[in-house]
Amino acid sequence: MLHDFGSRDTHFIAVNRRLRERLLAVAGAADTHVCVPLQGSGTFAVEAMLGCFVPRDGKALILVNGAYGERMARICAVLGRSFVTLEVPEDTPTDLEALDQALAADDAISHVAAVHCETTSGILNPLPEIAEVVARHGRRLLIDSMSAFGALPLDARSLAFDAVVASSNKCLEGVPGLGFCIARRGALEQTEGNAPSLSLDLHDQWRAMERNGQWRFTPPTHAILAFDKALEEFEAEGGVEGRGGRYRENCRTLVEGMRALGFKTLLPDRLQAPIIVTFHMPADPRFDFAAFYESLRQRGYVIYPGKLTVADSFRMGCIGQLGRAEIEGALTAVRETLTEMGVTNCTPAAD
Amino acid sequence: MLHDFGSRDTHFIAVNRRLRERLLAVAGAADTHVCVPLQGSGTFAVEAMLGCFVPRDGKALILVNGAYGERMARICAVLGRSFVTLEVPEDTPTDLEALDQALAADDAISHVAAVHCETTSGILNPLPEIAEVVARHGRRLLIDSMSAFGALPLDARSLAFDAVVASSNKCLEGVPGLGFCIARRGALEQTEGNAPSLSLDLHDQWRAMERNGQWRFTPPTHAILAFDKALEEFEAEGGVEGRGGRYRENCRTLVEGMRALGFKTLLPDRLQAPIIVTFHMPADPRFDFAAFYESLRQRGYVIYPGKLTVADSFRMGCIGQLGRAEIEGALTAVRETLTEMGVTNCTPAAD
Repeated sequence: MLHDFGSRDTHFIAVNRRLRERLLAVAGAADTHVCVPLQGSGTFAVEAMLGCFVPRDGKALILVNGAYGERMARICAVLGRSFVTLEVPEDTPTDLEALDQALAADDAISHVAAVHCETTSGILNPLPEIAEVVARHGRRLLIDSMSAFGALPLDARSLAFDAVVASSNKCLEGVPGLGFCIARRGALEQTEGNAPSLSLDLHDQWRAMERNGQWRFTPPTHAILAFDKALEEFEAEGGVEGRGGRYRENCRTLVEGMRALGFKTLLPDRLQAPIIVTFHMPADPRFDFAAFYESLRQRGYVIYPGKLTVADSFRMGCIGQLGRAEIEGALTAVRETLTEMGVTNCTPAAD
Repeated sequence: MLHDFGSRDTHFIAVNRRLRERLLAVAGAADTHVCVPLQGSGTFAVEAMLGCFVPRDGKALILVNGAYGERMARICAVLGRSFVTLEVPEDTPTDLEALDQALAADDAISHVAAVHCETTSGILNPLPEIAEVVARHGRRLLIDSMSAFGALPLDARSLAFDAVVASSNKCLEGVPGLGFCIARRGALEQTEGNAPSLSLDLHDQWRAMERNGQWRFTPPTHAILAFDKALEEFEAEGGVEGRGGRYRENCRTLVEGMRALGFKTLLPDRLQAPIIVTFHMPADPRFDFAAFYESLRQRGYVIYPGKLTVADSFRMGCIGQLGRAEIEGALTAVRETLTEMGVTNCTPAAD
């Protein structure tokens, strides 16, 4: 990131080519899909995917069990794309039977949009099963895998999807500044003219990049160089298996340590993605979340407020350049903070 | 850029506040306008400005004398915003009389969109005179000042505009990754619900940032920290006057040196912005542009191909962390390259 490359520089063009190939390989998609990077945050990529792939006369069924599903619905509303939602509570994975029925009942639905890991709760949605139902009904699947891509398996050779979007700065451990779409070539070719935006037009971005290897508009060069380095480290760690394995170990260490203190996770282990964990707020009145947050922060550990509507909670992440030492350090910080607060039991209030 | 701040970190929030205030101050707009930063390239900010400020029942008159005016027209077409263009050749500044007549003839035109410095040719458009005509007709002015902001005067106290957009990585000398809009508060307040995009909704971005100082969606933290540092350096150089002064000196040194070799500028000096200079291609058949470009590049100087439709040309930039030494180094590289090519006279073909 310390080198200020010009966007037409031949080395920079080569970095972009390699980066796109590496991302395709992560998704096992080299033979069937193409990778289109896009400036901006992950939401920019989600909006670009929905605006390009759901045609003006199409209709999206959006699977919602948290804030990111809701955001996809809001995007479709702003874009004027026809859509319906299929909602379940935040602690519940996608209802496959309801999905099956919804698709059977409405021929107008052309696309299904799913969130891979919904970080509102940390839940893992059943992507292979969703893809199977969608394919059986002959519809197209669009995936927001922002928080999961690179750590949880998602392979185009066994999973039918038209597009998946993610970003540089989650499980791939780059810095923020760009997202990308892994798009089935045949599907992307059909999206010409669909996008209700020039900046967020993935088809136009792809065509331009195929022509000369360059971005249409000024790319975030430094973030891209960092992303290239991050992907090198990702491969050195053993790809999805290695990265996901470390995160699973982080998650297990964290959950066991917190449970030993009396904390209770929102989700049962079988629904828990190893990305971010939601814990119920302890019932002890001496537990003050603002003070807890600040004490951890001062010790070097930043956690997340809860985002749930169904329960009072907070969240702790497992991803990034963290291993057992950092997770155990966080647990020590939690223990020290609880001692200072005089909290000895972190059991939540009974439901 | 070496520190990986969390986007909710209090220091990072303070940096964003300071950065927005600094940008307002550059435009003399602290009392009347607000600054809304946006992830992505400059074009993302231009699209956001047009989509937010030109309402669905509005109509834009777009002043075109190059690729960036044309891009604004393309954006309006994609967004489905009503628009007309007022075009002049690439070597000609905006026709003020034609603008006056166009506004007099069409009451439906609500907004005029202008490019401050059109880098297709390097021409400076007459912003104060454009603003005067637009204000006299009671219409609103939107400005793409991407390549000029920070180096050429643009002051809200003497220039009436609803919005101006620019980016981190041109005359303000930050790294690429974000743009920003300086928007008249009263005008921005009226744009709620106008935007045909969630990601590019400047009103929503502004409201969210006013609420808690945070970005709605993951910000490019590293590019923002670099931008803050770049603005510190900008102020230390004496702001618009200091930065613009250095670029004018760069431009003068470059043009004089190139003219001494026989090169001819496309524009007369009074129309030349000190940003990027277009030179006619020499007539000598021994002059090979591809070889010229590559020889300069190998010596460490990257120039730009021509972008003109009216003449065969190439361009050389004056902006960035360059001073007299770098410009003279470039001139030396040009002289050495011409000698190697056996070119002794760089006069272009007669018109």
